[in-house]
Amino acid sequence: MIDTIILGTIALDSIETPSGKVTDALGGSAAYAAYACSFFTKPGVISIIGEDFPKNHWQLLEKQMDLTGVEKKGKTFRWSGLYEHNLNTAKTLRTELNCLTELKPKLSQEYRKAKYVFLGNTDPEIQLAVFKQLDDPELVVLDSMNLWIQNKKTELLEMIGKTDVLLLNHDEACQLFETTSLVNAAQKALSLGPTAIVIKKGEHGSLLFTKDKHFSASAYPLELVKDPTGCGDCFGGAFVGYLAKTKDTSEKNMRKAIIYGSVIASFNAEDFSIYEMQKLSQNEIQKRYEEIKEMKTF
Amino acid sequence: MIDTIILGTIALDSIETPSGKVTDALGGSAAYAAYACSFFTKPGVISIIGEDFPKNHWQLLEKQMDLTGVEKKGKTFRWSGLYEHNLNTAKTLRTELNCLTELKPKLSQEYRKAKYVFLGNTDPEIQLAVFKQLDDPELVVLDSMNLWIQNKKTELLEMIGKTDVLLLNHDEACQLFETTSLVNAAQKALSLGPTAIVIKKGEHGSLLFTKDKHFSASAYPLELVKDPTGCGDCFGGAFVGYLAKTKDTSEKNMRKAIIYGSVIASFNAEDFSIYEMQKLSQNEIQKRYEEIKEMKTF
Repeated sequence: MIDTIILGTIALDSIETPSGKVTDALGGSAAYAAYACSFFTKPGVISIIGEDFPKNHWQLLEKQMDLTGVEKKGKTFRWSGLYEHNLNTAKTLRTELNCLTELKPKLSQEYRKAKYVFLGNTDPEIQLAVFKQLDDPELVVLDSMNLWIQNKKTELLEMIGKTDVLLLNHDEACQLFETTSLVNAAQKALSLGPTAIVIKKGEHGSLLFTKDKHFSASAYPLELVKDPTGCGDCFGGAFVGYLAKTKDTSEKNMRKAIIYGSVIASFNAEDFSIYEMQKLSQNEIQKRYEEIKEMKTF
Repeated sequence: MIDTIILGTIALDSIETPSGKVTDALGGSAAYAAYACSFFTKPGVISIIGEDFPKNHWQLLEKQMDLTGVEKKGKTFRWSGLYEHNLNTAKTLRTELNCLTELKPKLSQEYRKAKYVFLGNTDPEIQLAVFKQLDDPELVVLDSMNLWIQNKKTELLEMIGKTDVLLLNHDEACQLFETTSLVNAAQKALSLGPTAIVIKKGEHGSLLFTKDKHFSASAYPLELVKDPTGCGDCFGGAFVGYLAKTKDTSEKNMRKAIIYGSVIASFNAEDFSIYEMQKLSQNEIQKRYEEIKEMKTF
């Protein structure tokens, strides 16, 4: 039974950072998020790839997740980006949407019954289309990015109104709610319907805002970030995965889910693509979780 | 008996932020730090002011601290700055050093015996001159800024070698140690002699690095930052004040001192000059300390 589904992109990424470069590496919001989720529960993936999608990438994903929701058509979505000295922002060198424009998800009976849903970063119209096919979800978590804030704000705001937990990074939250104050952005976001807002701040950790509570999570301090691509997606995927595994969506349990999200994201940043996650053990995850706990105690 | 002394500037600040402006308001690293420290223990101040220093400013300070170490000569140091939309960085409009160039501290017998010493942000040559007059300090805490990293790096590095706890903000740490990794910067700083490095990250909190431990502190989330001037100084002053009050410089107690530093800095940011600290009660400090504790629990 698939109790968790994840919507997003599957991409071939060509990325250069001060630590090196990769060409046509496995990437995309759904690939990162679902892989991260798979440490907690096996997710179903809603996405699209091209006929040219490498077999070894497919096999890597297939071991960890259900891919019956992945369509195949034309050429795979490709993204090429460069991180310079400052690893916080990528410069997009080239985007080839290819098959991505063809994604019109039709959910299987099994997927419609999913209780935990992560609508990863993609066009809000597609997020809405998936949402409308869900039977009776327990928890809908939404991620987005500046592109959609600029180009599809109306659809994005509609989608936020149907969301339980909204994930946004620092700059996107300020941009969407036209403020420089995160507290203010969080209040505005909560007024639209979600019960919780998670602000992702990369190396500075993340913040959880609910109606009357506030939680501040630290990021794990890394000596070297090789490639931050997909960290936000990993965070979201692990967050949803942990909540699905524990079947507890209380604010208290969301705090733990956020720490697991930070843990998986921190491993992801230590290498390109999903290389680091491929090697990751449950023991290593738990060890880093305990380290963060110790880091926060006073 | 004065067990804590604080070196730094006393200034007349003219500041404009999106929330308003003030002219010739009480400012300077020693004024902020010593006022913040005074919530925990009464500090002695080493600084210099001009003959033109307003009497009401003097009276405000005198209530909270020992001013026998403050010289009077010529015209008071003036700084004028502008914060635009992004409150993280001030644009310096004008600096009049005035009497500041005349500061050649001679410590009284009482001050020489101080056990807890905060060498606040000022010329590292003056910090070294004060350090050399100390009898047998228990704890020396050092703050600095980009100006001295650029212009007096040799003297600053010498001073860091004599320091127990080094405070630096995020960008300064990266600049001084020529790295983009804070973990790396902290390791380099520790190799120079200090037993602890505190990286101040403003709204993102702060990090404490010691040889084998790491502590990550959240900043208190403010809806409105009116004026961030002096927050780093307040952080340092409260940090030293709490350690002096509790007479415990263990890593464990430094964690608490950092949270008290964050608490006082967060109040300071809520208004111009020391206006907010003037109104602050022990109850309010303790309440916000507990709130931060709750914010970090998972």
